[in-house]
Amino acid sequence: VKSLGLSDILDAQKRIEVSIIRTPLLSSDRLNAELGHEVLFKMEGLQRIHAFKARGALNALLRRSPKPSRVTAYSSGNHAQGVAWAAKSLGVGATIFIPKEASVVKIEATRALGAEVVVTENRAEAEAGAKALAEKGAFLIPPFDHDDVIAGQGTAMLEAIQQGAKPDAIFAPCGGGGLLSGTYIVASALLPNAKVFAAEPLLANDAAESVRRGEIVRIDASKTAADGARTPSICPRTFQYLKRLDGFFEIPEEEFLGWATKLSKILETAVEPTSALAMAAAKRWAAGQKTPKNILVILSGGNV
Amino acid sequence: VKSLGLSDILDAQKRIEVSIIRTPLLSSDRLNAELGHEVLFKMEGLQRIHAFKARGALNALLRRSPKPSRVTAYSSGNHAQGVAWAAKSLGVGATIFIPKEASVVKIEATRALGAEVVVTENRAEAEAGAKALAEKGAFLIPPFDHDDVIAGQGTAMLEAIQQGAKPDAIFAPCGGGGLLSGTYIVASALLPNAKVFAAEPLLANDAAESVRRGEIVRIDASKTAADGARTPSICPRTFQYLKRLDGFFEIPEEEFLGWATKLSKILETAVEPTSALAMAAAKRWAAGQKTPKNILVILSGGNV
Repeated sequence: VKSLGLSDILDAQKRIEVSIIRTPLLSSDRLNAELGHEVLFKMEGLQRIHAFKARGALNALLRRSPKPSRVTAYSSGNHAQGVAWAAKSLGVGATIFIPKEASVVKIEATRALGAEVVVTENRAEAEAGAKALAEKGAFLIPPFDHDDVIAGQGTAMLEAIQQGAKPDAIFAPCGGGGLLSGTYIVASALLPNAKVFAAEPLLANDAAESVRRGEIVRIDASKTAADGARTPSICPRTFQYLKRLDGFFEIPEEEFLGWATKLSKILETAVEPTSALAMAAAKRWAAGQKTPKNILVILSGGNV
Repeated sequence: VKSLGLSDILDAQKRIEVSIIRTPLLSSDRLNAELGHEVLFKMEGLQRIHAFKARGALNALLRRSPKPSRVTAYSSGNHAQGVAWAAKSLGVGATIFIPKEASVVKIEATRALGAEVVVTENRAEAEAGAKALAEKGAFLIPPFDHDDVIAGQGTAMLEAIQQGAKPDAIFAPCGGGGLLSGTYIVASALLPNAKVFAAEPLLANDAAESVRRGEIVRIDASKTAADGARTPSICPRTFQYLKRLDGFFEIPEEEFLGWATKLSKILETAVEPTSALAMAAAKRWAAGQKTPKNILVILSGGNV
């Protein structure tokens, strides 16, 4: 598989910055005092569709030439809204396949963006539905296994650096690994001394397990509350970056759910469980540090 | 000419709301105390490209089917950036003709949005350049003489009402009349008792003069500092709405320039001279009121 470089992320930023939100970096004095470290939060919950997924979907669609007349995707999470939003922004029709396990809120939000939503029995049927439509000419935007999607997701990290973040360690949640792949590409180029860590639910630790074994493993039908991290498996494209990370933290449910509640209060904005994974990982890492550190936590979304 | 109705503005909002900024309504206790009235400012200076022009340009481009491969426009002001932004958002090329009298800042901002900029000797050559390109197949988005542009501009007023504004009187600046036409369409449907007033520079009072005479008059090469109101003449399409307004205020240069400075300080954000016209008009109207009124001032842009 091809490897992306910083220039791909810079190009993606030029392409999408006129349409996405430059989300703020926030911090909490109270939390910093409690931890003894400085934590900056990249607030992707304040992004269009309240999740970083808007970035990758829009980049992929803008890169597609000629413009497709219809876009399709399969997703149980924020990627559905990301693709629906990108399509609506460009005045293109969208058909999104969502398994019925998905939250009603996410299904309705996808419909509200003008997309046709097909609710399927399970994830496999959703994927099959989107692929069948792609064979009829629709442009399929995969949730993470696509260079343009990864490049788009990487713009969140690029922005954070442009906004002044100089972290010693960076934390992001791991579903299919698109956000972390983009984050790694940027960080390894611009902050070579920074460590990059992935946070996964212990109940859906397929990526951590894949890195340990050196081959991609699959965990189907995880019941984790972190719906953005339920992806059964990563892919070779994201694996190439994920195996170069500085480590994985595998977080029990109650631990990241506690952080979701706490961060929502501290930051006065919705923080979804998948996002809170990254904070739980940061807390664990921080506890082992002997000197105060600068920490960047990418809060990936706020759809709860 | 056809007349637009509220449903056209509602349709435009559905089309563009996923891409534009829902700009805030701000007020200043200090200013309200000074005036003895409640003034709400619709902050279009915080819009994409720092001006309401993003709304109409995007609506026009999204309505165009099939998608053009190139967009063109002529403008000495914010419409240039509005069209460049809309084109970039949709991944479409743009060629914008700008007369050399325009501010360097606006020319550079248009280029920064990825548009090809052609600087012409004067306004007539800019218009001719865009029209020639349109004959070769580019989609020409006029600054105001287009139903989709007017419908898009009207979404600023619609948003203000949705955000809770219930004004007795509404003030907006008048260039070609697109913003005021859209504002009038919305206000007459949803706030039938509200008065709608136009503000023009005394040095470029062609619209007020047109309404007085009952026919469109032209003022070429006005030297007013309110560059958004330098448009030589309105058009039949906007005239039909402008003649139904509750009145025009024709403001001397020093008066609106004073307000531009004052409002920029009070609101802690850039307010361009054209926007300040509306506040100058509101002040004049307010001074004649015997009871406290609710006033909405549409601050059209913040490019200075």
